[in-house]
Amino acid sequence: MKRSVYFVSDGTGITAETLGHSLLAQFDNIEFDELTVPYVDTVEKAHSLVNEINRIAEETGTRPIIIDTIVNRDVREALARANAFMVDVFGTYVSQLETELCSTSSTVVGKTHSIVNSEAYSVRIDAVHFALDNDDGARTRHYDKADIILTGVSRSGKTPTSLYMALQFGVFVGNYPLTEDDFDDLRLPAALKEHKKKLFGLTIDPERLAAIRNERKANSRYASVQQCEIEIRAAQAMFNKEGIPYINTTHLSIEEISTRILATAGIKRRLV
Amino acid sequence: MKRSVYFVSDGTGITAETLGHSLLAQFDNIEFDELTVPYVDTVEKAHSLVNEINRIAEETGTRPIIIDTIVNRDVREALARANAFMVDVFGTYVSQLETELCSTSSTVVGKTHSIVNSEAYSVRIDAVHFALDNDDGARTRHYDKADIILTGVSRSGKTPTSLYMALQFGVFVGNYPLTEDDFDDLRLPAALKEHKKKLFGLTIDPERLAAIRNERKANSRYASVQQCEIEIRAAQAMFNKEGIPYINTTHLSIEEISTRILATAGIKRRLV
Repeated sequence: MKRSVYFVSDGTGITAETLGHSLLAQFDNIEFDELTVPYVDTVEKAHSLVNEINRIAEETGTRPIIIDTIVNRDVREALARANAFMVDVFGTYVSQLETELCSTSSTVVGKTHSIVNSEAYSVRIDAVHFALDNDDGARTRHYDKADIILTGVSRSGKTPTSLYMALQFGVFVGNYPLTEDDFDDLRLPAALKEHKKKLFGLTIDPERLAAIRNERKANSRYASVQQCEIEIRAAQAMFNKEGIPYINTTHLSIEEISTRILATAGIKRRLV
Repeated sequence: MKRSVYFVSDGTGITAETLGHSLLAQFDNIEFDELTVPYVDTVEKAHSLVNEINRIAEETGTRPIIIDTIVNRDVREALARANAFMVDVFGTYVSQLETELCSTSSTVVGKTHSIVNSEAYSVRIDAVHFALDNDDGARTRHYDKADIILTGVSRSGKTPTSLYMALQFGVFVGNYPLTEDDFDDLRLPAALKEHKKKLFGLTIDPERLAAIRNERKANSRYASVQQCEIEIRAAQAMFNKEGIPYINTTHLSIEEISTRILATAGIKRRLV
């Protein structure tokens, strides 16, 4: 029997869900049935969720877990009446912070993700469009504006990483694929030479790369472990020879790849 | 004087930062100097951070705030020696959850974002590539595979929203721009007709759109408030006439747009 978990928020639910995943990941011997419930911003909505949670508690014979980041006290208290174990983040910390900061909280909902000030919004959008315009080596003439240029063999994770870094950190990321043509003399492609200091390599285990490529082009030469091995060995040799920092993405999520690159390359985020 | 805040984690720092932003957003009369410190995964690194924090405490005469999601108890305790106010999420909740779940935590670092199982990774990557391949009406022949198709005038937020939904929720999102040609008879573009049930409209206030467009093409007809008004009015008329749900993105972040669309359209996430 899975344990029911509700990530509840009066905003997007992203904070509650992110925190909840972190906490529950510590209990990997337990199976959870997770549901994110965003925009619970009235007492009425809380009541209706309480009814659902109580029904599940009765049906399963176990009280569900609530992990909530509800700002409004009334809504929070309404939800607290559910037959559930409640991890109530704002309830726990806001009053502590009020004391520490000698200030009262504004208890306004949904402030976190309301990046509506023109500047921050623009940075994000511009970063996304920069990533798109400079994806996969399509264009290289804007590389002087790039904060970083990712390079690596096909399907090593360049594009998703570029886009994640753009959306999450507002960083301007170009990416350039290394192909067999580039490996003849292990020299940097001409387009990359003058931007060497901005380069960051992605590498990956051949078996993993072959699996990823196989989902696109099953049983092709492109997707064979042999071919993947040849390309990866050449790419790493190039990174080593040219002194380009690189990271092995095999066992990392996109979040981990992105944050490790930021930390290693010492890039300044444009979105804080 | 800004109050120094450290978001500290032995993983990516994304959870600590997300939660920290939520909490601090409640104190909008106070200015914070925020720093995310990821991968603090040894006692030695914690010590060195403690030294930095203590130095700042001394320099500013005010103890900094630490918001941490460090899993390892030893590292956490080392950090707790800093002259700071500590919001220690795992310290607060993990033992409570252990009791509630009748289970001990595994205290393994960085589990949250380690989406390294092949299936979840593939879903995300596939969703990103789907968004890219079906961006801006470039192709419409894959719309049968889309979970949702965003539509709206140029610069209403379609592309960033598509990519965010792909990365965060693994949802397959196409997007199709509405241009003046589409507004002659207020009928749906032919390519969209058979996918009407998947359509979701984005709209935006004309002044905001003009500001966004002006950053791209300053003082152009395209960026004029007049032109923006005409296009937006026509787009909304089309949405209303065809019964397409839509959302005004003017005062919303990309997270809010995405989660509201998910909730309103009742789309199932492929990534949980």
